[in-house]
Amino acid sequence: MIKVGLVGLGYWGPNLARVLNQSAKCEFTACCDLDAGRLAKIVKQYPTVKGFASFDDMLSSDLDAVVIATPITTHYAMARKALEAGKHVMVEKPLAHKAELAWDLVNKAASRQRTLFTGHTFIYSPPVRKVKELIDKGHLGDVHYISLSRVNLGLYQKDTDVVWDLAVHDISILLYWLGEMPIRGASFGRACVQQAKRDVAFLWLEFPSGVVASNEVSWLSPQKMRRTCIVAANRMVVYDDTDPNEKIKVYDRGVNWKAPESFGEFQLSYRMGDMTAPYLGNAEPLLKEVEHFVHCAETGENTLTTGEFGAKVVEVLEMVQANRPLEVQRKAAVAEAGGI
Amino acid sequence: MIKVGLVGLGYWGPNLARVLNQSAKCEFTACCDLDAGRLAKIVKQYPTVKGFASFDDMLSSDLDAVVIATPITTHYAMARKALEAGKHVMVEKPLAHKAELAWDLVNKAASRQRTLFTGHTFIYSPPVRKVKELIDKGHLGDVHYISLSRVNLGLYQKDTDVVWDLAVHDISILLYWLGEMPIRGASFGRACVQQAKRDVAFLWLEFPSGVVASNEVSWLSPQKMRRTCIVAANRMVVYDDTDPNEKIKVYDRGVNWKAPESFGEFQLSYRMGDMTAPYLGNAEPLLKEVEHFVHCAETGENTLTTGEFGAKVVEVLEMVQANRPLEVQRKAAVAEAGGI
Amino acid sequence: MIKVGLVGLGYWGPNLARVLNQSAKCEFTACCDLDAGRLAKIVKQYPTVKGFASFDDMLSSDLDAVVIATPITTHYAMARKALEAGKHVMVEKPLAHKAELAWDLVNKAASRQRTLFTGHTFIYSPPVRKVKELIDKGHLGDVHYISLSRVNLGLYQKDTDVVWDLAVHDISILLYWLGEMPIRGASFGRACVQQAKRDVAFLWLEFPSGVVASNEVSWLSPQKMRRTCIVAANRMVVYDDTDPNEKIKVYDRGVNWKAPESFGEFQLSYRMGDMTAPYLGNAEPLLKEVEHFVHCAETGENTLTTGEFGAKVVEVLEMVQANRPLEVQRKAAVAEAGGI
Amino acid sequence: MIKVGLVGLGYWGPNLARVLNQSAKCEFTACCDLDAGRLAKIVKQYPTVKGFASFDDMLSSDLDAVVIATPITTHYAMARKALEAGKHVMVEKPLAHKAELAWDLVNKAASRQRTLFTGHTFIYSPPVRKVKELIDKGHLGDVHYISLSRVNLGLYQKDTDVVWDLAVHDISILLYWLGEMPIRGASFGRACVQQAKRDVAFLWLEFPSGVVASNEVSWLSPQKMRRTCIVAANRMVVYDDTDPNEKIKVYDRGVNWKAPESFGEFQLSYRMGDMTAPYLGNAEPLLKEVEHFVHCAETGENTLTTGEFGAKVVEVLEMVQANRPLEVQRKAAVAEAGGI
Repeated sequence: MIKVGLVGLGYWGPNLARVLNQSAKCEFTACCDLDAGRLAKIVKQYPTVKGFASFDDMLSSDLDAVVIATPITTHYAMARKALEAGKHVMVEKPLAHKAELAWDLVNKAASRQRTLFTGHTFIYSPPVRKVKELIDKGHLGDVHYISLSRVNLGLYQKDTDVVWDLAVHDISILLYWLGEMPIRGASFGRACVQQAKRDVAFLWLEFPSGVVASNEVSWLSPQKMRRTCIVAANRMVVYDDTDPNEKIKVYDRGVNWKAPESFGEFQLSYRMGDMTAPYLGNAEPLLKEVEHFVHCAETGENTLTTGEFGAKVVEVLEMVQANRPLEVQRKAAVAEAGGI
Repeated sequence: MIKVGLVGLGYWGPNLARVLNQSAKCEFTACCDLDAGRLAKIVKQYPTVKGFASFDDMLSSDLDAVVIATPITTHYAMARKALEAGKHVMVEKPLAHKAELAWDLVNKAASRQRTLFTGHTFIYSPPVRKVKELIDKGHLGDVHYISLSRVNLGLYQKDTDVVWDLAVHDISILLYWLGEMPIRGASFGRACVQQAKRDVAFLWLEFPSGVVASNEVSWLSPQKMRRTCIVAANRMVVYDDTDPNEKIKVYDRGVNWKAPESFGEFQLSYRMGDMTAPYLGNAEPLLKEVEHFVHCAETGENTLTTGEFGAKVVEVLEMVQANRPLEVQRKAAVAEAGGI
Repeated sequence: MIKVGLVGLGYWGPNLARVLNQSAKCEFTACCDLDAGRLAKIVKQYPTVKGFASFDDMLSSDLDAVVIATPITTHYAMARKALEAGKHVMVEKPLAHKAELAWDLVNKAASRQRTLFTGHTFIYSPPVRKVKELIDKGHLGDVHYISLSRVNLGLYQKDTDVVWDLAVHDISILLYWLGEMPIRGASFGRACVQQAKRDVAFLWLEFPSGVVASNEVSWLSPQKMRRTCIVAANRMVVYDDTDPNEKIKVYDRGVNWKAPESFGEFQLSYRMGDMTAPYLGNAEPLLKEVEHFVHCAETGENTLTTGEFGAKVVEVLEMVQANRPLEVQRKAAVAEAGGI
Repeated sequence: MIKVGLVGLGYWGPNLARVLNQSAKCEFTACCDLDAGRLAKIVKQYPTVKGFASFDDMLSSDLDAVVIATPITTHYAMARKALEAGKHVMVEKPLAHKAELAWDLVNKAASRQRTLFTGHTFIYSPPVRKVKELIDKGHLGDVHYISLSRVNLGLYQKDTDVVWDLAVHDISILLYWLGEMPIRGASFGRACVQQAKRDVAFLWLEFPSGVVASNEVSWLSPQKMRRTCIVAANRMVVYDDTDPNEKIKVYDRGVNWKAPESFGEFQLSYRMGDMTAPYLGNAEPLLKEVEHFVHCAETGENTLTTGEFGAKVVEVLEMVQANRPLEVQRKAAVAEAGGI
């Protein structure tokens, strides 16, 4: 069983500690944080885990893999160091604060034959999985458009804006569902409360298959919305992550062209059928994610939220912030990594 | 009491006929449609109203005012003819299919001293009025951004796309609330079912005061949404037009900068207070609208959904479709007409 | 085509006038009300309908059938008079203010070979029909219990209490779905605003099959609820009449006994499956009801909301108000009329 | 700081362990369970807490107070033993499985001058507190009736029925809000899945002040409802515990008698005003409860969910199951204990 160390015990780290401790698939042996109080708290809660004040010291200990949950701008340096120390690495999303650096990590991991993995937890959640299955089995038909809202009166992040904090989730979900990179992206928003960092943003994406997507993200909204609507030729789906019971609703509804009888106008016909909310179970995504990372590290398998996947998400984040089409000549690494 | 004739008895016309008949403020004396069946049905329902197969014949009859509810591309020609015949004119929204033509109508009405009025019914609805009152009284504080969704599995229009059919409502509401024209506008969408006409679109608008707005409109969506969120410095409002009971919810919530105590970082403080849903009554907007038109025609008053207002809405529709900033040199008529 | 007259043009009568006028299955020829203003309004709206100030005069005119929408305590006398005049009769619910009188009407109609029909409109509504179909086809399995809530800040009736005004709907729905009479009934409530008439009541019913039902009715409640939950062995259904889109939700959920493996305790197993909301269409119940009455009058068919059905509903109303079991010896007429 | 031991580490015990550990107001020093696995798990999680396989051994250790979270039928014997050992005692609700035994515990605690406390957690939850405040300050006016629904597809309890498991919450809330004991109570229900234990029940209660209450409880229902509606003369409140944001909605609505102008009928007038959802904060009820117990044990204060309060709740449970009015001659202890 591989031994795992965790660095970064701030907002998200304690959740990772909980599942690392809970999982029977790995051994949670070390943790690290610059803040002595945080470190002490986790060590007290999990007495078998050794606490380190220095990341270098933790890397020198008996460890196979490292999970990184530190601030975004530190991801690159810490992940590189861990890979260079021969560890398998899982990095919280986004993989890095620049696409160039993210791809550099992908290359490092490949050359050293280590697993690089990105913590896009939603890819392991039952509703996101169910929609992927509905798309892949052709149950929905061709996807027309996807509209995603992720807003509430949320915790402002100090080192990032709302796009890098919230839209990163929706972009990972879109790449996972569609299996393709957008050809165009743009964003629009406002920094309402802070000086330079946008707390509300609206994103547009266009995909090679013709799918268009819109994504609204906000830290400054009175009601919580986690609503995604997938409109396709044969079915429509609403995925509402705030609904405790029916997160996914599949509607057998649509509008079709009707061929004119002899000559005359084309006619539209409306199709109104049943709605079904499939039962989704209640597996915990974070546990599934961590165990998939462990599985990849142990077997060399490179699937789902790989380093490549994480790097592509960062590319899209850069694309929408620059309001530009995806560069025609992307980095060599992308071409080599193949499709998502 | 002024005598009113109605032309166009298709989808919306019968609703206008109902309130024209219901109102004690005007006399509903004439109606007109090219389709003999529709005409006969209305005449049977309102036996005191005279039916005309020809618009010219109706204009020649004893009438003071005309309400036009024909297809959009016919608005300009019919309104011009009615103004030239010396009638007061109310035109269903949008006022015309080109801004240039809309302003031409505004000028015609001014030179002939006749009332030109646009049927932007939402401006007469209790929730839209309530939000306007909250903004104008300073209850909300500075508006940061507004997000508007207007989607359902809706009736496809033959002569227009979803922006001209649905976003026209949201644009009129934004202009009314903010009292200013956007300086930039853009749109993005897709024609999913038909060839050229978009059935889903996402609009972005930026206003001189700094307010940004996003508007999602769709004829192709499984659930009906009529949701508008207004985020301002002191209060936040959700206006949900599908809620039968609490269409307006005012949240005493927000995020504020907190000055650092001596030196150190600025801090954010979260303000969480009560939510209030003001009682709105149940006045019928369409009746209020028609009676305001009658009042304007009788008194020469030129307020609310005037011709100028309708022309500005058409300007914004053109702006978002062209994805361009509002031209710096706008038509002379705009300058003369003054603020909204 | 049979000629129909309508008496009682107060709160509900105008709705009946609208569908009588709309239906192609009958001729709406006469109406009657003691209030001259109401009468004039309906006659103006439907110029081909003759207005009568006297019910006797209307009965003497050229009519085949009469629809009675007058206050409850007048139902018996007017229906008897109409039957004696040889008319087919549809009476708004409840059929009479005493079960004895209701059965007298049933007998009168039988002896004169005229159709007696009760206006229990919900029996013609798509969601109530759908649940009946699910029960009858065995899709739900044995019904365990039914809980029905029908509350809002409603219109107080002058001549009746909330049980006779609102619970009458739920009782009719229960008798229709279950096809059996309760063996026990009781009620509990309070007259909060008026002196003697209860504006809130809670009913309990027990049926021979073992099904138990609870019904909450109130005119004095801040939120509107029209919610019915049917819990059965194989499926559970929530019927929410205030939901504009998914009035019926069928849940594949339940709890089962699991036989002990060798010896030991019985175990419970929880079954969690999909939820389905069948598409129900949008047929208008009132139109379907009136046309079924016309069909029965023309053909002699005696199905659905017959006089017998209406009399049984009145029996249950009396039972719950008296808090007593159904009398063992019911009227001869019941026995003769057979099952519901 | 008092030292607290916890007995019963099954379903609910671990939650108590968590808050006992979290609280700075007491020292969590001992725990006890017959099941070695459960015991080991808690001891591992809280290494400073000593585990006992025997309750007697735990009572003999250095302890000031005991929290009892064992099956209901064991409450009495264990609480008596703990009181006799001189400990302060908090017992999970219901206090005992018979009212007689509950009052015996009350007397024991009084004679030994120890705190007896019942774990009615809802009394410490912000929404229940807010309603109490609205009632006590006269903001609602005279209460007319209260309707409470507590249903879902829930965990079947082995040693109790749904009334003792779920209605116990609603009864405690009613006694707390109204400050009086019901004069009549009844219940009705069915054992749908198991042989003898009801999994659905409907309760009726009538209070001396005239307030009536209805309570629906079910373990067998497809949707979760935690909805309580309080209808009073000046305001109406809906308390929905499943709403993550607005658990309490206060409606300024009602119906009033209007005096007749000279002579004539009394008239009803409808009052429709705003709705307000007060912000409630997010204090954890269980922590507040445990800390109030600690406070009472330390100071001798005897308020809120005292032993007397717990005994009265058990009396009402017996009353509704026996379908009988509250006995006129209640136990001496009740009279002595005074009002709630």
